Amino acid sequence: MRLRHKPWASEELAKRPNLVIQQPEQHKGNWNNCFCTAQPLYVEVGTGKGKFLTGMAKQFPSINFIGVERYESVLLTAMERVEAEKLPNVKLLHKDVAQLLEVFAENEVDRFFINFTDPWPKKKHAKRRLTNERFLTIYKQLLKQDGEIHFKTDNQGLFEYSLHSMSTFGMAFKNVSLNLHQSGMEENVMTEYEEKFSAKGMPIYRLEATFRP
Amino acid sequence: MRLRHKPWASEELAKRPNLVIQQPEQHKGNWNNCFCTAQPLYVEVGTGKGKFLTGMAKQFPSINFIGVERYESVLLTAMERVEAEKLPNVKLLHKDVAQLLEVFAENEVDRFFINFTDPWPKKKHAKRRLTNERFLTIYKQLLKQDGEIHFKTDNQGLFEYSLHSMSTFGMAFKNVSLNLHQSGMEENVMTEYEEKFSAKGMPIYRLEATFRP
Repeated sequence: MRLRHKPWASEELAKRPNLVIQQPEQHKGNWNNCFCTAQPLYVEVGTGKGKFLTGMAKQFPSINFIGVERYESVLLTAMERVEAEKLPNVKLLHKDVAQLLEVFAENEVDRFFINFTDPWPKKKHAKRRLTNERFLTIYKQLLKQDGEIHFKTDNQGLFEYSLHSMSTFGMAFKNVSLNLHQSGMEENVMTEYEEKFSAKGMPIYRLEATFRP
Repeated sequence: MRLRHKPWASEELAKRPNLVIQQPEQHKGNWNNCFCTAQPLYVEVGTGKGKFLTGMAKQFPSINFIGVERYESVLLTAMERVEAEKLPNVKLLHKDVAQLLEVFAENEVDRFFINFTDPWPKKKHAKRRLTNERFLTIYKQLLKQDGEIHFKTDNQGLFEYSLHSMSTFGMAFKNVSLNLHQSGMEENVMTEYEEKFSAKGMPIYRLEATFRP
């Protein structure tokens, strides 16, 4: 994702406290109270400019969505997008994924989405990949018993690594696709990356995973 | 694989009892006695015309290899290939994979190879795929504690299914490759299928898997 520094981002985000939640730690364990309706909670980590999150929230009004993003400049675009759509079932958090345990309680999340995350191709940076075991440990704590992780990427190396990392962690996969846009999966909401890469004919890799008890 | 019926195959195979083992059930638990040297045992299920098995046996003389194949006409080609190479560390069995428990003892096998096996694409035939749980149950019994399954295929659907099936069975993956011939893996011995498909630029999928304790 192209990062353009916007010095005004922080101030702008603070102007929409109903959408971009300030001091999210205070809502830990009670996120349903922040939404109009108590319903399942899906969290996208590294939500970027919010295209996927917005598309999903429109398609599934009976789900609450939270997008977590650590770059304020990017989150600002996501904020504008959600506002334009007037979606009651979306909130945004300015947080790093490593801080998720401060924000969500155990068993509070029904599903995590990890979409087109930074592949960190160098081996010495493997710990930064969002499917590294240090993040899997966090997702596992926060997910409900049968909660799922839905992961997609255009990056072959990251997908190969994730198959290793997640299976070694004890996770089980289903609905694996090694070429998502050939598989005719319905209900797929594309991210900005995905539109760009699949338009070039590059395969998109996708899987759903659960932590076995 | 093209199957040409050879009515004389059975008779020809019986002429080489040192290579194509007759009544293999008698050697259950004592396969090392059938080879000149006691060393690790690698088994290829569905060995076909034996190109991979022969190549591996040449490359790794300190491993004993057994190829299992249920079609006699195909096994005959494998036999001729192994004979031409005069390899002391290869034996062949005319058996169905479903019969492996009759032939090998628990913890007798160090590694299984599953190469370019029939994808059985129809859902109702899923049970016939060699990575279906009914076969995984067999491999698990026969493999040593840290034994591995090495699996490769050109078939996207079969690989997707196998990621599901094996991870759900509790297996952990390593050295996953979603495009083997781009990944520059050394020591790769190609099967006949593999040569054909990779020459066309089609990706070859590969993984190594272990049963976690």
